Amino acid sequence: MKNQNLIVLNFKTYKESTGDAALKLAKTCDDVAMENNVNIIVCPQIGDIYRISREVDIPVFAQGFENIKYGSNTGHVLPESVKEAGAAGCLLNHSENRLKFADIDASIQKLKELCMTSIVCTNNIATTKAAAALSPDYVAVEPPELIGSGISVSKAQPEVITGSVDAVKKVNENVRVLCGAGISTGSDLKSALELGTEGVLLASGIVCAKDPKAALLDLICGLG
Amino acid sequence: MKNQNLIVLNFKTYKESTGDAALKLAKTCDDVAMENNVNIIVCPQIGDIYRISREVDIPVFAQGFENIKYGSNTGHVLPESVKEAGAAGCLLNHSENRLKFADIDASIQKLKELCMTSIVCTNNIATTKAAAALSPDYVAVEPPELIGSGISVSKAQPEVITGSVDAVKKVNENVRVLCGAGISTGSDLKSALELGTEGVLLASGIVCAKDPKAALLDLICGLG
Amino acid sequence: MKNQNLIVLNFKTYKESTGDAALKLAKTCDDVAMENNVNIIVCPQIGDIYRISREVDIPVFAQGFENIKYGSNTGHVLPESVKEAGAAGCLLNHSENRLKFADIDASIQKLKELCMTSIVCTNNIATTKAAAALSPDYVAVEPPELIGSGISVSKAQPEVITGSVDAVKKVNENVRVLCGAGISTGSDLKSALELGTEGVLLASGIVCAKDPKAALLDLICGLG
Amino acid sequence: MKNQNLIVLNFKTYKESTGDAALKLAKTCDDVAMENNVNIIVCPQIGDIYRISREVDIPVFAQGFENIKYGSNTGHVLPESVKEAGAAGCLLNHSENRLKFADIDASIQKLKELCMTSIVCTNNIATTKAAAALSPDYVAVEPPELIGSGISVSKAQPEVITGSVDAVKKVNENVRVLCGAGISTGSDLKSALELGTEGVLLASGIVCAKDPKAALLDLICGLG
Repeated sequence: MKNQNLIVLNFKTYKESTGDAALKLAKTCDDVAMENNVNIIVCPQIGDIYRISREVDIPVFAQGFENIKYGSNTGHVLPESVKEAGAAGCLLNHSENRLKFADIDASIQKLKELCMTSIVCTNNIATTKAAAALSPDYVAVEPPELIGSGISVSKAQPEVITGSVDAVKKVNENVRVLCGAGISTGSDLKSALELGTEGVLLASGIVCAKDPKAALLDLICGLG
Repeated sequence: MKNQNLIVLNFKTYKESTGDAALKLAKTCDDVAMENNVNIIVCPQIGDIYRISREVDIPVFAQGFENIKYGSNTGHVLPESVKEAGAAGCLLNHSENRLKFADIDASIQKLKELCMTSIVCTNNIATTKAAAALSPDYVAVEPPELIGSGISVSKAQPEVITGSVDAVKKVNENVRVLCGAGISTGSDLKSALELGTEGVLLASGIVCAKDPKAALLDLICGLG
Repeated sequence: MKNQNLIVLNFKTYKESTGDAALKLAKTCDDVAMENNVNIIVCPQIGDIYRISREVDIPVFAQGFENIKYGSNTGHVLPESVKEAGAAGCLLNHSENRLKFADIDASIQKLKELCMTSIVCTNNIATTKAAAALSPDYVAVEPPELIGSGISVSKAQPEVITGSVDAVKKVNENVRVLCGAGISTGSDLKSALELGTEGVLLASGIVCAKDPKAALLDLICGLG
Repeated sequence: MKNQNLIVLNFKTYKESTGDAALKLAKTCDDVAMENNVNIIVCPQIGDIYRISREVDIPVFAQGFENIKYGSNTGHVLPESVKEAGAAGCLLNHSENRLKFADIDASIQKLKELCMTSIVCTNNIATTKAAAALSPDYVAVEPPELIGSGISVSKAQPEVITGSVDAVKKVNENVRVLCGAGISTGSDLKSALELGTEGVLLASGIVCAKDPKAALLDLICGLG
């Protein structure tokens, strides 16, 4: 049976995950997911979603969109456009793309309307609890100081993760918790799951690895 | 000989210009351009650039990007990504997406570096003159109150257009001037050209027309 | 005994509440509060806080500040500066000044640290519940479509108010609820209190009234 | 006769230039200016403008405002409020507070209307030239990488200063040029004036000096 835990790979805007390189990386993720029967979700840049979603079987999520409607919004990213390009879900409020509070709420509702999955990023226990009150599908707790640090939050600040899981369950038990920030190895993932999360959100540890496939294979060992 | 004047069609985020509809509209523009030997440039949403640029021969421009570099910029639009998706140029500083002054300068330089064409939108004679000092390929003068109004700036405020053309030529005679705001008919285009511009930037007049092809055919009559 | 319910008057940036006029209005509020033994809080513009706080006995709150620290932040509003100018509390996340989610959390913590009172504005039941999880002193529910409308939320959408009060109490019973949007008369205030709130946040109904003192006197009748 | 060159001191949001400390620093500037017959302008935080402008004779400028009109703009900084608080001019587009291009133009016009002086900060020769086309009273050229560095632009990049002076004079000879970034000593000021500027914009070199009065006295030696 397929392990239900998620590995969400944020492509950010690295050179290693832009354009042709993004497509290659997404295919690697697709291969690893299919061969090992695990859930990997890729989050490429908006300009790459269309081509990637045509070439892989794993879900493709957007890194974000704007709280706008059809109309006169030159240069802005419409949720419906992201959906039509092939995205099945979206990250919201990543630490590199913080959203206004009212826009997070509206965006979660919009994603529900479009039958897309929402992952709201948060930075501590209080904001995780608050985000859960907005009923997204997932929250991903990422202490900003550990993002890209190589120091896994699941090891360095386990109390943030367990505290977040507890707080979320009190507010809305249907919301699932992911663990982000500093995750790169199977061991990081394993401890994240042991703390009560249902997966991880990660980026540079895989995207910028010398051998992304090897890094992914190491990571998924953590699924147990 | 091909008329050198430009028709730049901003797709904005209308329902009529998102996803499949965007592709259809771009193909219509392509047909009209090819059959009539005129220059039409389409500016679809970022998520649609890849698929459109694979299917049309006319240039595809982006509606904007952000002044960022490869790296950790979740949810932001990287210039290199826009280029890899297939864009040959970009609108900058549209009234619906105003940029910081220093970012306009940096973005024009970035586009030069990527061998892409820059069109900087401005709102009056003073800002048009100032923008020309930054040496973009084009400036597009659009009094904001006329955008989407159906009232052509070339008829309602011809002095803004002639004043802009004069001011630009004093600062940098290589910068070409486009005329925006309220343009929709061949007659609007004709007067824009008579005022010294080298083309028009328009949107709803074509995109939201009942019959975009007919609207385009009427428009290009203005090229003379 | 003094009625504990609050009347919070947001001065916004009206001509009637800028500079000398702001001082005059604040003194009127001070007079009404003292003569009638009621709680009125004034929220003038940042440039007027110092002079007003020297001349009135009622609390002066800021309309907002930025999540920044001492240092190089030209043109930005430092929380410590607002405090030194004489503010005893602050509005956060007003619909005309929406904040990023993480900044709301950090700003509430900053206000606690500075021994200042926090009032977080929200727009519906879900965001009110989420804001309560961040433990501010007050939340002020204001459906944006009713702000400045003259249609009182306590009459037009009473279920938003009772739903907010219920949701807040479940998350953190120490957080008190204010009612905003369209409030101007004593009757509006009375119904707001009957719905379980502990006061109101209002602006144009008093600030732009022909006779603000008379309007305030009518309003406080609603305190019962 | 009084030397016409300007020393503009940006208080930023340092602890040494907030509230009571800001007032003390402004009085030191006032003393030095009066005793030595030189032009010093202080730019405190918005919350400190009122009290400082009542206590000093030298001009007080704001660090910025927003391009808004009287009305519903909770938490925003109205130009008229800054004027009423006592400001005689304003910095615009500081590198820590970059403005949108169209807002710089509108803000310069607004300052003219309010009979206030405008100083537009720019980051290189091209943007300085462009800013001059908008006809502010002053432009202040500040290569961002040197701000707060202690390395004077007038010594490290003299060609940026002379290039800016030349470019400005071609576009609008009434616009005067100030030199910013890394300025702290009399020697820095002297070289700035020799390169054709009419003064300097500086901050930490004086504000954070152990003895700001001594630092100012050293600085004004550079006026010759």
